[in-house]
Order: sequence, then structure tokens, then C-alpha cells
Amino acid sequence: MPHLGFMLLLALALGASLGAAFPRDALKKSCSLSKYQFLVPHELKAVQKMKEQFEDIMLLSDRKCNTRLFHRKWNIAELSVPDRVMLVEAELDLATAMLMLPADPAFSKTRQQPLTFLTQAREDLRGCVATEAPSHQPSGKLRHWLQKLQTAKKTETTGCLEASAILHLFQMLNDLRCAALREQCT
Amino acid sequence: MPHLGFMLLLALALGASLGAAFPRDALKKSCSLSKYQFLVPHELKAVQKMKEQFEDIMLLSDRKCNTRLFHRKWNIAELSVPDRVMLVEAELDLATAMLMLPADPAFSKTRQQPLTFLTQAREDLRGCVATEAPSHQPSGKLRHWLQKLQTAKKTETTGCLEASAILHLFQMLNDLRCAALREQCT
Repeated sequence: MPHLGFMLLLALALGASLGAAFPRDALKKSCSLSKYQFLVPHELKAVQKMKEQFEDIMLLSDRKCNTRLFHRKWNIAELSVPDRVMLVEAELDLATAMLMLPADPAFSKTRQQPLTFLTQAREDLRGCVATEAPSHQPSGKLRHWLQKLQTAKKTETTGCLEASAILHLFQMLNDLRCAALREQCT
Repeated sequence: MPHLGFMLLLALALGASLGAAFPRDALKKSCSLSKYQFLVPHELKAVQKMKEQFEDIMLLSDRKCNTRLFHRKWNIAELSVPDRVMLVEAELDLATAMLMLPADPAFSKTRQQPLTFLTQAREDLRGCVATEAPSHQPSGKLRHWLQKLQTAKKTETTGCLEASAILHLFQMLNDLRCAALREQCT
């Protein structure tokens, strides 16, 4: 898997986040995460199908990682709501970039629905960051985790990053739900 | 992960299957797979928990495989009932051996319940082979797959075999259910 393509995707993902520079009022109406409080079964099913298909082929490539990218010693509910939104945005940034890597036709087809869903969720999260907490500074806990993720993006192989992201999609969806539930996620 | 320990486990697993040499009548009462027609939710949950925990740590080791061990172009329902029983027995032989490899204390604890369940299922399958089809010859389809599995056991690394088995546990449980459903599995 080409590292160049991966870096390009990351650059694109970073570039797109500049959308946060739009005027606040123009984006205000786009901050609505309530639809992620209860995830639709057919979306979950599509993610599950994709994960199973990936598990079927993933061992044919080198996937070894030096660190556990998604490991953390705290629970997302311990974070403030703006922290949660930032966390999930970072997770979905990685996930969507990984789901756009070159793949065989069968997997490309299967990942289409989850990719559309996760891309939309990421856009919704970005809208919320821009409107509700445009200058939010992450807590120490979150900053440390984000830093670890940034380092991993540079030091781990694409094979490792792709597998880590896909194997942890349900964790990300749980995090998304927790961010959407705001104070109700405990 | 030591290959020697793995070979020892395989030898033990193979040795235990000599139990099939017992007199038929003595084992007859032990052939009952009906309890596997509907898998108990707490057993499925325990397997899911273990799989998730494994996915969390698996990428830290080399897991690359040269082949897709559990890939097959046919559906288990296409096999005769004795063929299905033989298939699942072979799958669970591998799975139980892999779940007895050295592991960290947390994973050792989590895998205990699934290991007990899968070991019991394998014993029940062995009882059925011994009583219902002691001299059953596998079909060409199944023979080819069993041969592929035997070769993989010798040529693939323990890391690959362990990951393949654990990632495909739900496929094995589906196969077990299909074997238990007999003619009702279509």
C-alpha cells in the first residue's frame, strides 16, 4: 500500500477541516448530532459486514503495529462534550482516510455505505466544532491521546493504521453515540 | 510464540481424537448436538468479548498468513450431515488448540468461558462421529479443505493460525449450528 497516497489523503482530510473557518452563523444550523444518539441498524449491519470482509483478507498483508492506537485508560464519558466531539472527529478522520485506500473491487463495494455514513458523521462533527466550540482547547487527557494518534500516523505503516481503524470502528461508533448523547452519556 | 508448544498442543488434540476407537454402544448416548441448534446469548457474548479483546492486542504481533485458512467457495449446507460434523470438529480442534496458547493474564481469563464451551462442543462432535458415522469418508470438497487446513497447520506461523482461528470463531459457531440443525440447515 503506497505511503504517498496515504499522506495525500491525510493532507486532503486536513485541508477539508479548514471549513471550520466559515462564519459561525452560516454553519450554526449544521450542528446537529442528535441523529447519532441511536444508530440505525442497517448502518451498523453494513459496518459489521465490511469488518467481517476485512477480517477475511487482512491477514494476507503485514499489519504489525508498534503501539495500540486506540488504547486509552479513560472512558469517553469522562471527557467534556466538546472534548468528545474532537476525539470522534479525529477517529473518523483516520477511519475515512483508511476507507479510501486502494482496495479490491469486492471490498470497495462493501465499504461504500459505511464510508458515506462515516464521512457524513465527520462533517456533522466538524460543523459542531465550528459552531459550538470554535476555540475549544482539548483537555490534557485528550491532548495526550491526539498527540499519540498524530505520531502513529507518521510512524506506523499504512497496513497497521488501516487494520487498527477498521477493527475499532464499533468503538468509534460508540464514541460517536456518546458525543451525540451529550450529558446523557455517563 | 513457541512453535514447539503449538506442535505439542496439536499432537495432544490429535491424540485425544483416538477416543473414536471406543466401542460404539458405549458412546452412543453421547451423540447429541441438539443443544447447539440455538446458541445461548451469554456464550455468544463471551466469544464476542474475547474476540474484541484479541483484536485490541493482535496487531502488536506478526500475524501475516500466506493463505486464507477459512476461505471456501462452498456453503456448509451443501455438505452431508456427517461431512458437516467432520468440518466443525476440525475447525474446533484448531480453535481450542489456539485458545490454549500462552497468553497474558487478562486474555487468559476472558478466553476461559469460550474455551470451555468450544471444548465441550468438540467433544460432542467427536461423540457423534464415533457413533453415527465411524467410518465416514469425507466428500471431495471437504477432503480438499481439510487437506488445506493440515498444510496450513504445518506451514503457517502460530501468529497467523491464532488470528485466523479467533477472527473466524463466529463462522465456526454458525457451522456448529448448521451441523446441529441437520436437514433443517439449508
